[in-house]
Amino acid sequence: MEKNVKITIQYDGSRYQGWQKLGDSTNTIQGKFEAILEKMAGHPISIQASGRTDAGVHAHGQVANFILDSSMSMEEIKDYLNQYLPDDIAVIKIEEVSRRFHSRLSAIAKTYRYTVRNSRIPDVFQRKYMFRVENKIDVKAMQKASEYLTGEHDFKAFTSLKKIKKSTIRTIYEVKIEQQQDDIIFTYTGNGFLHHMVRILTGTLLEIGKGNRQPEEISEIMMSGNRENAGPLVPAQGLSLMEVNY
Amino acid sequence: MEKNVKITIQYDGSRYQGWQKLGDSTNTIQGKFEAILEKMAGHPISIQASGRTDAGVHAHGQVANFILDSSMSMEEIKDYLNQYLPDDIAVIKIEEVSRRFHSRLSAIAKTYRYTVRNSRIPDVFQRKYMFRVENKIDVKAMQKASEYLTGEHDFKAFTSLKKIKKSTIRTIYEVKIEQQQDDIIFTYTGNGFLHHMVRILTGTLLEIGKGNRQPEEISEIMMSGNRENAGPLVPAQGLSLMEVNY
Repeated sequence: MEKNVKITIQYDGSRYQGWQKLGDSTNTIQGKFEAILEKMAGHPISIQASGRTDAGVHAHGQVANFILDSSMSMEEIKDYLNQYLPDDIAVIKIEEVSRRFHSRLSAIAKTYRYTVRNSRIPDVFQRKYMFRVENKIDVKAMQKASEYLTGEHDFKAFTSLKKIKKSTIRTIYEVKIEQQQDDIIFTYTGNGFLHHMVRILTGTLLEIGKGNRQPEEISEIMMSGNRENAGPLVPAQGLSLMEVNY
Repeated sequence: MEKNVKITIQYDGSRYQGWQKLGDSTNTIQGKFEAILEKMAGHPISIQASGRTDAGVHAHGQVANFILDSSMSMEEIKDYLNQYLPDDIAVIKIEEVSRRFHSRLSAIAKTYRYTVRNSRIPDVFQRKYMFRVENKIDVKAMQKASEYLTGEHDFKAFTSLKKIKKSTIRTIYEVKIEQQQDDIIFTYTGNGFLHHMVRILTGTLLEIGKGNRQPEEISEIMMSGNRENAGPLVPAQGLSLMEVNY
């Protein structure tokens, strides 16, 4: 009997070209899953994630689903996947869901985390999951700036997409910026994020944190709708998709 | 004026052949430090650690010292080292100490940690710092066995050294075995450890945890003085030198 299988996934994105399968490339998370699912089921199976993550981006709680006609139990499927997946990808949770569930279309909110190491001393054990900035950073100024981001806005200035056909309006429910020892953790929760949006928002907030811009400018940048006015795209390695809510 | 410089170091040992410099190999932690110190001082400088760590072993708190004739401040030396060291090695603390201080000879205790991931699901972000065991492990049995280890004993059965000229008697002050979610953390504090001792002790305790041996056997293995009676050498990647006390 056909089952709709929902899985929660973690991955260290360091050596992958991102979630989405590109042609014959198996160097994507989706490619890894589909190769194993095909072996397991005996025929091709396509897997759908809540959204693509870019090359080098990590996930602590990506969600994906696939339709499978199998007598295997959920626990058996999870074990099979974890047995054949490389050690930098893991299925941490599995459940059978209604046929109406779609990991992308059913998602109502996502949470991303960006980690900045603010020190001249690297964190040797977490170095691949953070972006190191040596400048002095004013967390309070960034927190003030982040207040302008919450709510429904047109985030066109904060995306790398050149040709934008679809709406660039998104709602950010919460932006948290916390200092934890030498790390600064940016947490963004919203109903959806445009391509590169979290990394450009973080790059812009860091410009404010360094004192190169004022918190109030965030508003002007947003209203301009012009990518050139925003800050730089910070590296993928500091970013992780933490949670998807349905 | 000559200064005796004590540094506390962290490293991810994954891609190194261990602490100790071997011939021309620069693929050692000591080799990395000596190359940078020579560049900084303009002449060769030798660095001494509290002890060697083997290939693949990590350190959260290795201690080393070197003699330097320089007008640089401690903070400047630390910054210089961190600037030129690769991202998987960091100097987290520096201080000028008395000329009598010797990182190896002055050490009175060391603490090592061995991390076992006891799950069919890998920890994708910490996977390089743990050894994964899927079997069911009885932590209580291992804790009982570990009681036989504390105190002064001849640990000859728990070392890989073939020709042993020096004493194999050591004192273990404390062995802690803690379950933290899916991880089992072994913490050993003693006045010194023989070659491979922590990894063979952990391998032996895991045999007990799996139910292949009884806790009381630890005592018999120790008294036999025979390496063949002890458990297997577990992989280097789960081991980290946490602290050296003086």
